[in-house]
Amino acid sequence: MSQINQTAALREWAQVVGAPHVITAASTLKDAETGTFATRHKVPAIVRPGTRAELQECMRIACRRQIPVYPISSGKNWGYGSRVPASDGCVLLDLGRMNRIVDFNEDLAYVTVEPGVTQAQLFAFLKERGSKLWMDATGASPDCSLIGNTMERGFGHTPYGDHFANSCGLEIVLPQGDVIETGFARYRNAKTSALHRWGVGPTVDGLFSQSNLGIVTRMTIWLMPAPECFQAYYFRCETDEGLTAIVDALRPLRMDGTIRSASHIANDYKVLAAVQQYPWEAANGQTPLSRDLMAQFRQEAKIGVWNGSGALYGTRAQVKEARRLLRRALAGKAARLQFLDDRLLRLASRFAKPYRWFSGWNLERTLAVLKPVYGLMQGIPTDHPLFSTYWRKRTSPPAAMNPDRDGCGLLWCSPVAPNDGRSAQELTGIASELVLRHGFEPAISITVLSDRAISCIISLGYDREVAGEDEKARRCYHELLSTLARHGYHSYRLGIDSMNAMGADSTYSDFLQDVKHLLDPDGILAPGRYIAPRSTRKSLTALA
Amino acid sequence: MSQINQTAALREWAQVVGAPHVITAASTLKDAETGTFATRHKVPAIVRPGTRAELQECMRIACRRQIPVYPISSGKNWGYGSRVPASDGCVLLDLGRMNRIVDFNEDLAYVTVEPGVTQAQLFAFLKERGSKLWMDATGASPDCSLIGNTMERGFGHTPYGDHFANSCGLEIVLPQGDVIETGFARYRNAKTSALHRWGVGPTVDGLFSQSNLGIVTRMTIWLMPAPECFQAYYFRCETDEGLTAIVDALRPLRMDGTIRSASHIANDYKVLAAVQQYPWEAANGQTPLSRDLMAQFRQEAKIGVWNGSGALYGTRAQVKEARRLLRRALAGKAARLQFLDDRLLRLASRFAKPYRWFSGWNLERTLAVLKPVYGLMQGIPTDHPLFSTYWRKRTSPPAAMNPDRDGCGLLWCSPVAPNDGRSAQELTGIASELVLRHGFEPAISITVLSDRAISCIISLGYDREVAGEDEKARRCYHELLSTLARHGYHSYRLGIDSMNAMGADSTYSDFLQDVKHLLDPDGILAPGRYIAPRSTRKSLTALA
Repeated sequence: MSQINQTAALREWAQVVGAPHVITAASTLKDAETGTFATRHKVPAIVRPGTRAELQECMRIACRRQIPVYPISSGKNWGYGSRVPASDGCVLLDLGRMNRIVDFNEDLAYVTVEPGVTQAQLFAFLKERGSKLWMDATGASPDCSLIGNTMERGFGHTPYGDHFANSCGLEIVLPQGDVIETGFARYRNAKTSALHRWGVGPTVDGLFSQSNLGIVTRMTIWLMPAPECFQAYYFRCETDEGLTAIVDALRPLRMDGTIRSASHIANDYKVLAAVQQYPWEAANGQTPLSRDLMAQFRQEAKIGVWNGSGALYGTRAQVKEARRLLRRALAGKAARLQFLDDRLLRLASRFAKPYRWFSGWNLERTLAVLKPVYGLMQGIPTDHPLFSTYWRKRTSPPAAMNPDRDGCGLLWCSPVAPNDGRSAQELTGIASELVLRHGFEPAISITVLSDRAISCIISLGYDREVAGEDEKARRCYHELLSTLARHGYHSYRLGIDSMNAMGADSTYSDFLQDVKHLLDPDGILAPGRYIAPRSTRKSLTALA
Repeated sequence: MSQINQTAALREWAQVVGAPHVITAASTLKDAETGTFATRHKVPAIVRPGTRAELQECMRIACRRQIPVYPISSGKNWGYGSRVPASDGCVLLDLGRMNRIVDFNEDLAYVTVEPGVTQAQLFAFLKERGSKLWMDATGASPDCSLIGNTMERGFGHTPYGDHFANSCGLEIVLPQGDVIETGFARYRNAKTSALHRWGVGPTVDGLFSQSNLGIVTRMTIWLMPAPECFQAYYFRCETDEGLTAIVDALRPLRMDGTIRSASHIANDYKVLAAVQQYPWEAANGQTPLSRDLMAQFRQEAKIGVWNGSGALYGTRAQVKEARRLLRRALAGKAARLQFLDDRLLRLASRFAKPYRWFSGWNLERTLAVLKPVYGLMQGIPTDHPLFSTYWRKRTSPPAAMNPDRDGCGLLWCSPVAPNDGRSAQELTGIASELVLRHGFEPAISITVLSDRAISCIISLGYDREVAGEDEKARRCYHELLSTLARHGYHSYRLGIDSMNAMGADSTYSDFLQDVKHLLDPDGILAPGRYIAPRSTRKSLTALA
């Protein structure tokens, strides 16, 4: 882009959003260019529209002045690129000021929000009203945007964990500044805009998730009526191979609706990183943490090779029956299946020691390991999982954690596999070997995302302040993505540097590129994000 | 289109699909031009490709020769247009020969089919294999195409009743003959093509449902593991206003997962039409059937003003608890809540009379009214609902029913409303009054489609052989659509003559038309179907 155009655009944007909301301070831009892995893309400015109308005008200016822009909601896309744009020279469109909760209905159990609304904000909103509704929360951070996470197809821990599947009625600003609304919301007086997903005619919500075709400025999120009874369950498995039987045992319960939310199964490395930083002393300063040392820590911390958690929701009788079915399904396959509810938790906090004495179960230690997830299963946002991004740091995490700022290295690889034990075992086996070979710890959690598919989240954690580690991690991550893709396990979500790392069918890519070209002929909106820029090839269609 | 082009196209199509599969016999074409309401569109030929490759070639020929085409799977789009194209002069592309079941997995519970595969075919397939999986079925007909119904976003009666939500991995032939696959199937060796809905990057499945942007040639359908225990429930409500309380009572049970499938609530007219034809004699040959006469028939046939049905699925304990919760929820709101299962049904068939004697419940009559839905709730296809399309005929339905052929008049209007009692009451009130005023019986069923939305299906049944009735029904239908839309109740599905009957936000329409123009610049594929042809206006985007 020409300097003249950029200067003109900045002036015009300032007229629209107000000068204080056009930021060009070098240190702020540098922060925005910084993620949890090495990034190269420069951010020439940050623009912060306060309303949809301002955003529309900002897009028209960007198109006229040919300045590429990259929208972020909260910019907490940690492990995938944080706030850093997917290509160089994009002005950040920070939507954080658009943070109104514009509609709420207790009976029909939904809330309609703007992109700046965070998990913490919605949680507080529901609490204030004494609402009987639960939100779903991801483990990322209370300050995460709900729309941002949903459009990235993130997931959480309650029965509403598939965020994208539990949203509807999008309001979208197209690259050239027009606005559309999806579902029945396209009809101005519709009574079902917030209630019915498909509307009539082609359903286009999906086009705008993991996409650079438009900016979602409003979305309805469905909320879950709090159940009469809630119980979390936890279990362990003491062998690597035991995973096969566990995944196969859980599948029927998920399919028949007994388990309505995602079960999570974390390996030993993942659990250890949740409760402590890298054991530099015990490892004699060496990395990665060997399997042998890991085995030792497992013993000490009483964690399994695999560590399962999940929750049961329903009436007392429903939860009781689910407990019976879960016990039966996991018998002989998982160890130490335990159930935890609010009552037991209160008791435990007061009587942890005597409880241990009469039950033999070290509740105190167990709680330290498992409690953070307990709240998430009720949709309570937490920043506890951020702790683990400091895994390889030599100093303790600060009170206000910020992995971007603190040089925490983090890359998330998130392959999807069939919901069967053999696939889970194969995928985690390949990933563990590969990651250790590259000198990192394979911190893996498996999420039983849906009836038929599981998602593995493989975290590569490292210390960005150690020379050479950025590049080492990058190589590991790319080999991991491509190796797993070669085995048929493709990631559900990609980092800003990895949009094309898995290869793709070219007709499908051409199709998306043609739609992109239709809506955004000059590639102004988030170029490179999920849809690769069109090459010089001729269009798939005769026309464009 | 020019006659020369058409002749050339027919010759070229014959070379691709074989001469016997290009049909131009006048009587066959006339049948194809005939639906369950007055239609004007001519069909110049029918072409029946046998494979995807043949279909691709057919589309290339159509584009080259500029002949519009209209794909049908089984063409049983009764009430919305049957096989008749949405605009004049389209050659029918009949996909019925593409009827292979191409993949099946018992453990992961899915089947992958081509467009010609019917409900009956899949049902037989599962039976033959002794599969423990249930399909979902609509009440339309065993000969309905699974893909056709799913792409029209039809619904059924089991927990997998939202067909579109329980499908994935589409293979699509684009208008100009290219092929794309959606979800992870875009990656050739993906292990999760049939298992994970979203894939990575923009999700495009929705674009191709209720659409004319492509032809779905392959789709995966998720199947439901048969539950340990199945029980149907039936209830009645003796007043019109009682509907409010019933809908409000069912909503929490749907939201908390106690009721996992759609409940159906049919009014008296709907139930009467399911068990008998129009009572010409009692009505002295007059139409419509007045509310007073209807009240009399209600008494005699022991049906309620509203008649609910649904089913419970789970383990014995889960179903028992659901039964308790349902009883509690409906207490004082619904009458005669009854549960029915296979055991009771077997018993009933043998001991209906003595059972009546000791229980006071007229099981025999109840069974006659309710049994057809019982199978549907287990995913067993039936053509029983076809019977009601003969409602106003003066002769009995033939053994092989065919409403198109037999001059059965049928228009379906399918507005969606919030899942609350007040909305259900308002919608059905408006519809009943309007339909009666136009001289038809308001046969209405409410389907509690999802947690937050209900769908009303309003059937206008009439005798096409009575002069003037076609036009009378058309007027009624259009007033119904537009009146309900004005009140905020928009239809989830539209007939071939009503694609624009509800009005629409123009930016959204422009957006769809631009995408259509991109993929199909000459409007060859199913012109007028859900996406209106582009007017002479300039494109929404600067480019196209």
